[in-house]
Amino acid sequence: MGAEARMTAAAALGVVELRDRLASGALDALALVESYIARIEAREEVVGAWAWFDPEFARAQARTRDSYRRAGRPLGRLHGLPVGLKDVIDTRSIPTENGAAQDKGRVPLRDAFIVERLKAEGAIIMGKTVTTELAFMHPGKTANPHNPAHSPGGSSQGSAAAVADGMVPLAIGTQTGGSVIRPASYCGVTGFKPTFGAIPRRGVLTQSPSLDTIGVFASDPAGAALLAEVLFGHDPEDSATILAPTPALLAQTTTAPPIPPVFGFVRPPGWEDADPQLHAGFEELVAALGDQAFELPLPSVFDGAAEARKRINFAEMAYHYYPYLRDGTDLLSPATREAMEAGNKVLARDYQSARDLPKVLTAALEELLTRCDAILCPSATGPAPRGLETTGDPIFNGLWTLCGSPCVNVPLMASEEGLPMGVQLVGGHGQDGRLMRSAQWLFDWADGATE
Amino acid sequence: MGAEARMTAAAALGVVELRDRLASGALDALALVESYIARIEAREEVVGAWAWFDPEFARAQARTRDSYRRAGRPLGRLHGLPVGLKDVIDTRSIPTENGAAQDKGRVPLRDAFIVERLKAEGAIIMGKTVTTELAFMHPGKTANPHNPAHSPGGSSQGSAAAVADGMVPLAIGTQTGGSVIRPASYCGVTGFKPTFGAIPRRGVLTQSPSLDTIGVFASDPAGAALLAEVLFGHDPEDSATILAPTPALLAQTTTAPPIPPVFGFVRPPGWEDADPQLHAGFEELVAALGDQAFELPLPSVFDGAAEARKRINFAEMAYHYYPYLRDGTDLLSPATREAMEAGNKVLARDYQSARDLPKVLTAALEELLTRCDAILCPSATGPAPRGLETTGDPIFNGLWTLCGSPCVNVPLMASEEGLPMGVQLVGGHGQDGRLMRSAQWLFDWADGATE
Repeated sequence: MGAEARMTAAAALGVVELRDRLASGALDALALVESYIARIEAREEVVGAWAWFDPEFARAQARTRDSYRRAGRPLGRLHGLPVGLKDVIDTRSIPTENGAAQDKGRVPLRDAFIVERLKAEGAIIMGKTVTTELAFMHPGKTANPHNPAHSPGGSSQGSAAAVADGMVPLAIGTQTGGSVIRPASYCGVTGFKPTFGAIPRRGVLTQSPSLDTIGVFASDPAGAALLAEVLFGHDPEDSATILAPTPALLAQTTTAPPIPPVFGFVRPPGWEDADPQLHAGFEELVAALGDQAFELPLPSVFDGAAEARKRINFAEMAYHYYPYLRDGTDLLSPATREAMEAGNKVLARDYQSARDLPKVLTAALEELLTRCDAILCPSATGPAPRGLETTGDPIFNGLWTLCGSPCVNVPLMASEEGLPMGVQLVGGHGQDGRLMRSAQWLFDWADGATE
Repeated sequence: MGAEARMTAAAALGVVELRDRLASGALDALALVESYIARIEAREEVVGAWAWFDPEFARAQARTRDSYRRAGRPLGRLHGLPVGLKDVIDTRSIPTENGAAQDKGRVPLRDAFIVERLKAEGAIIMGKTVTTELAFMHPGKTANPHNPAHSPGGSSQGSAAAVADGMVPLAIGTQTGGSVIRPASYCGVTGFKPTFGAIPRRGVLTQSPSLDTIGVFASDPAGAALLAEVLFGHDPEDSATILAPTPALLAQTTTAPPIPPVFGFVRPPGWEDADPQLHAGFEELVAALGDQAFELPLPSVFDGAAEARKRINFAEMAYHYYPYLRDGTDLLSPATREAMEAGNKVLARDYQSARDLPKVLTAALEELLTRCDAILCPSATGPAPRGLETTGDPIFNGLWTLCGSPCVNVPLMASEEGLPMGVQLVGGHGQDGRLMRSAQWLFDWADGATE
């Protein structure tokens, strides 16, 4: 199914090219939306990417956008581009159920910050994509579009699968552990988690305020940069964001690097237990990159990072999800409940100590990143696992989430069964543009190398 | 002893007038410093305000300042003004012992941010003032200058007592519970705790990063504003500070309000248990203020504030003071040890909940402050308690420290025994200038009323 599955006419174009055609009028928003609606109607039963989808709602927005363009009104930076939104992102008048039984029928009164941005920039809200329960581990209904017997990953499973299946060119997710990079890896799309605090989170479900990060999905790094650039900003209601100029992400991503980028290949904790196909793939990739890749040992201070991230995550989740536990434990999955129960037992002392660790890690990382353009490492432990009862292991993601470093999954490899295996690039704090430029370079290089 | 005790020639002038005379050359820094040295030498045995004091060190700085002025070099905003520093503020090459047995002989390699500022602005570092053990409850050697059988308050006891006794015109302290406002009240000086995050804390002992606030002492609000204005700023190493213009505190404080300020009189939780002399004093004060004061009931959401502040304080102290506990519990006082042991038991869940409370309180406070220029309430539960084994009860301070609101003690009342009882004014977040203007108005009004 793999590559074939994505062969709608529209999806054959890059997102930036789509954007250009929509802006010039070479392509009508309505025609584009119809092609995606057709794809969704044909494939949704198998993939199950959508928590809420109404073709008429999408068409109505497309007609408005087309009439704006025809009337010569100024167009937003995402004019006419459909976007899928993980169902933890509040949308006014549209259900936002957080994948939780207790939020069935919940309809927010206000758009999230990022939804306001999307609307202001002319994007079309295509619908809400499936999330795991409360953006944690318990899976929703989504299957991997490359093979529906396999997991799409989590927690942003609907967003990753919808983009991978060509149902929508762009989608938004969130990552607290590995919820953007892992599903992007399993589904074979670009997934970009920017620097912590780059995208304001007001109106997005709070699981763990020290870790929650909004990320984006697209077919290529340039598409992800196009979408992320619009979402970067400052919101006084999100104290993780800062009032600072936002980067010209798209321009940086689509500019060739002044010299070919150099990658520091990291074997993160847990590497030995990863899939042998992954080991082989990375050996091949590093060899093919030649002088552009070298092995970068990770200092031992990173060994405790996964545990520290988990402690913060569970403790903050126990506090912020408290109403869900109070209102009916029987409505929560065992995975969520157990994590919250563990979180309830965390001591303030240990929580503070875990929250201080990123300072040390980030200092070490910045040092490593003086020697290379990006860290290169696996996005997941292998291809998507078989069965929909798990969303896979986030062990290669939590480390970078804890550091707040920007990460991107570049869809480069495939397993013997044809399932994608992604390559994760990690950059320095606030160096999102440089990271995405390296990602686009790697994406194009691999394309050329396999032609 | 009271008023008399302060009658050195220099101390009879306001700090701003001293500053002006120093800048014009009407007064030599060395002559000024000599008068304070004489006062310290005469009174230190009784008051015990200093943890480290070397008259030669003060004279050497004064000579340098005088030579600068004579050479026509530009003068700093604090040119020639002696300042006492609480002994939790790092000073390069000068002992900084944090009031802790384990820090005996500790000499920092680097100045705190605020010490760098003081030096750049031409202030004279007069010495290090006594702090309670680790800026918590266990008292140091300082006595109340009005009656040495009574406590000077804590934890910034040396700073408050030194200013009250005319040993130094300005001093710096810190407040985590009530460590600036309470000693200012007991010693009868102006004590100003600015908005949380206004003054960078790099190089100052960390007890509780969510609460620790640097404050200042002077004989009047204008003097406190002069000093605080120089210290306000942004430091990337203190994430509580923000990059924003700093207020013209002194100019605001010394400008008459456009209309006479109105005070909202608050009886905070614990009011009933306060000293009857305090009750009577406030009744009289509010009556004398006439239309300029009205009773402002505090919403019940504030009832849990003291407990929440304590929980944060103890939990953060347990984490940040861990090395002191590890290296020898026998070297710590029972008060500090017990607080840390309680802090060690706090759950991350309860800690997060306490840390979220200020958001609610601040919203309620801002609403109350639309109705008045400042909240008026007691600084302490009465005059300084007899005996040096306690530093008194901070119950009227913790509430505002938790909110991060700016507070100032105005020395207005006295008990029958002649011990000072202060009036606390509380302002809105970031409204430090307006608060200090109201404080100066009240200070001058009381002065006129008692003439």
